[in-house]
Amino acid sequence: MMLPSDANPMGNVFGGIILKHVDLIAGIVAKRHARNTNCVTVSIDRMTFLKPVYIGNALIFSARLNYVRRSSMEIEVQIESENLDTGDRVKTGTAFVTVVALDKNGKSTAVPPLLTVTEEEGRHFADGERRMQNRLKDASKI
Amino acid sequence: MMLPSDANPMGNVFGGIILKHVDLIAGIVAKRHARNTNCVTVSIDRMTFLKPVYIGNALIFSARLNYVRRSSMEIEVQIESENLDTGDRVKTGTAFVTVVALDKNGKSTAVPPLLTVTEEEGRHFADGERRMQNRLKDASKI
Amino acid sequence: MMLPSDANPMGNVFGGIILKHVDLIAGIVAKRHARNTNCVTVSIDRMTFLKPVYIGNALIFSARLNYVRRSSMEIEVQIESENLDTGDRVKTGTAFVTVVALDKNGKSTAVPPLLTVTEEEGRHFADGERRMQNRLKDASKI
Amino acid sequence: MMLPSDANPMGNVFGGIILKHVDLIAGIVAKRHARNTNCVTVSIDRMTFLKPVYIGNALIFSARLNYVRRSSMEIEVQIESENLDTGDRVKTGTAFVTVVALDKNGKSTAVPPLLTVTEEEGRHFADGERRMQNRLKDASKI
Amino acid sequence: MMLPSDANPMGNVFGGIILKHVDLIAGIVAKRHARNTNCVTVSIDRMTFLKPVYIGNALIFSARLNYVRRSSMEIEVQIESENLDTGDRVKTGTAFVTVVALDKNGKSTAVPPLLTVTEEEGRHFADGERRMQNRLKDASKI
Amino acid sequence: MMLPSDANPMGNVFGGIILKHVDLIAGIVAKRHARNTNCVTVSIDRMTFLKPVYIGNALIFSARLNYVRRSSMEIEVQIESENLDTGDRVKTGTAFVTVVALDKNGKSTAVPPLLTVTEEEGRHFADGERRMQNRLKDASKI
Repeated sequence: MMLPSDANPMGNVFGGIILKHVDLIAGIVAKRHARNTNCVTVSIDRMTFLKPVYIGNALIFSARLNYVRRSSMEIEVQIESENLDTGDRVKTGTAFVTVVALDKNGKSTAVPPLLTVTEEEGRHFADGERRMQNRLKDASKI
Repeated sequence: MMLPSDANPMGNVFGGIILKHVDLIAGIVAKRHARNTNCVTVSIDRMTFLKPVYIGNALIFSARLNYVRRSSMEIEVQIESENLDTGDRVKTGTAFVTVVALDKNGKSTAVPPLLTVTEEEGRHFADGERRMQNRLKDASKI
Repeated sequence: MMLPSDANPMGNVFGGIILKHVDLIAGIVAKRHARNTNCVTVSIDRMTFLKPVYIGNALIFSARLNYVRRSSMEIEVQIESENLDTGDRVKTGTAFVTVVALDKNGKSTAVPPLLTVTEEEGRHFADGERRMQNRLKDASKI
Repeated sequence: MMLPSDANPMGNVFGGIILKHVDLIAGIVAKRHARNTNCVTVSIDRMTFLKPVYIGNALIFSARLNYVRRSSMEIEVQIESENLDTGDRVKTGTAFVTVVALDKNGKSTAVPPLLTVTEEEGRHFADGERRMQNRLKDASKI
Repeated sequence: MMLPSDANPMGNVFGGIILKHVDLIAGIVAKRHARNTNCVTVSIDRMTFLKPVYIGNALIFSARLNYVRRSSMEIEVQIESENLDTGDRVKTGTAFVTVVALDKNGKSTAVPPLLTVTEEEGRHFADGERRMQNRLKDASKI
Repeated sequence: MMLPSDANPMGNVFGGIILKHVDLIAGIVAKRHARNTNCVTVSIDRMTFLKPVYIGNALIFSARLNYVRRSSMEIEVQIESENLDTGDRVKTGTAFVTVVALDKNGKSTAVPPLLTVTEEEGRHFADGERRMQNRLKDASKI
């Protein structure tokens, strides 16, 4: 539940506060896949805030591990906002977070592969792979 | 995920921090039942902290509306702690929170009755009723 | 003094925030009795919030060590709320917190006995003992 | 009790955190004298931090209204730090805070005079008056 | 200066904390261009965290308004991290934040055009325009 | 940008919050001069709050190292407040912070001398020296 301490001067919730929660949740998902490693966020893809979130709304975060490549994981976080007075829920945005697993010396370390069973999981994996390649391509330009 | 900013000087998570989250979550459950009212916590039953929670653990809260009586609701919040390095989960405690719905003038206001369908739901309701009666009995002694 | 950053979306102070302070204060009282140990909260008895607390109110906490049994201590925290505009003070609630002293290895360790001198102290001790026995009896049922 | 969330990177408590509490406490003292006004801090005299405060220490603030002049009040806040392991208490510093009472339109408004009874109170009043005159003299130079 | 209260359990600074500051700073830049409007963040482009930031580091944010299109503004925030012990500064990342100006009724409202004088400003404007078109193209696919 | 979480119950920003930022900024300036030491604030001179700061204002802090004497540094922090709706900036106050550099054993340690080149720097140095002598004189009376 979003509290007055999460507000900007207009009384809405900051995008930055939402991203702080996104980062935290992606970290939990990553650690659950890559136990016993240190998981660090290396990028958060473009995050579009579709609707304002108001104080008193509940934010609902749903996260999924889409894709794994050696030490890198892509976590997708869906964000919805619920008006607790009416029950109306609106989609606030979707974030794609890339997390890398590090060993005790701070070197990237392989994590278990992601097994996809259903067709949907396969599609998420393929989409994640394509986005990861775009990130690497963009990164090489910096 | 419990962060250094949630720690006491020994590096564990405060019981008080856990109760702050319990209160917040009970408030969401109550509002989802009693839409369009103001929901205020009137009591939190004895909360026993079975195990310490460490920085870096994930806390998992599972909440259920057990019992409703006119404007009062009993929400049960189960708290588990997950060691993200190992995946071990331990039960941290259970909290019973009583929330009352208020109208815009601050008067208690009736909320929808709680319909129980399964046998389990009926048992939770009966247990909640018994605890509520104990609370009222104890309160009359204050 | 309760600040906007302590507020829930209705502009009152969360019960959870009050319990965070209760826990902190009980910890100080326990450490003052059981110097040089680690004091952890193991339970907070039912806490009834008699009145809402508003932003701008002062909260006044008065704590007392009621009862000691080997490594366990019961601390009673009285909570009052003062309207700083009028000076009116109302009782907000009473919390009974059980704290256990641990040694450096995390094992419970004996603390100094509580010497009661006045009749009132003796009564607090006896009441504390009775509540402690109830807690142990209830705990054995979990 | 000072918590990890109050620490600077060296693990001590920030002077700025201590001053935040000083300001809050001076505000309570002022409001208790000047009920039903808005009390704003207009200055905090030089504050010397005599000793570092460590995480896990208790801070003890003792405040006194020294002096009143129409709408201005001088509040003295004594700060001690207690090592909860040993019980050792050291003086951390003394702060002199000047607070002005404002009415609903933001104009300074007279508050009740401060009646001094004991010789000690008279001395505090005289000292406060002298400090206030120094402040006004210094302010006129800005 | 990054403090223990900004840390994740590994003792580094969260990406989410950095993005909270990015959002805040972009809001100041936008308000300075679009006075007397409400400025809301509508998107933050992919943010790559090039290096970890440690507790005790200073973060240095440098922001620039690159591009304006009616009610939309692109703000670029460069983030550097300074090791205060050695003075070494490393680039932590670059964020592109899109902010929209709203009037009192929550409708988007035109802001002053961005005048570019130097060649460099012209290049930033053209790059901003290209990124904005990509965002709009991507958004139309959602 | 000052946020609702920085507010006092009247909706203004606490003096204590401003001083927390002053202390943090003085610490950065000191560390940049005295690399590889621990810098602790030993005093903050009288700080006069000339104008209230409102939620939504930007605070602008400008800091300068005025004076160095072996292990002690005087940092001057100018504080302005900007109304982001109108662009109006007002001076909020000036703080003089004394910071001492400590070595790894907690002993004060010499820092590089402050070289003054311009006449203005020389004047700041002389003024800082005079204030430092006043502080030492006052401290000897405590």
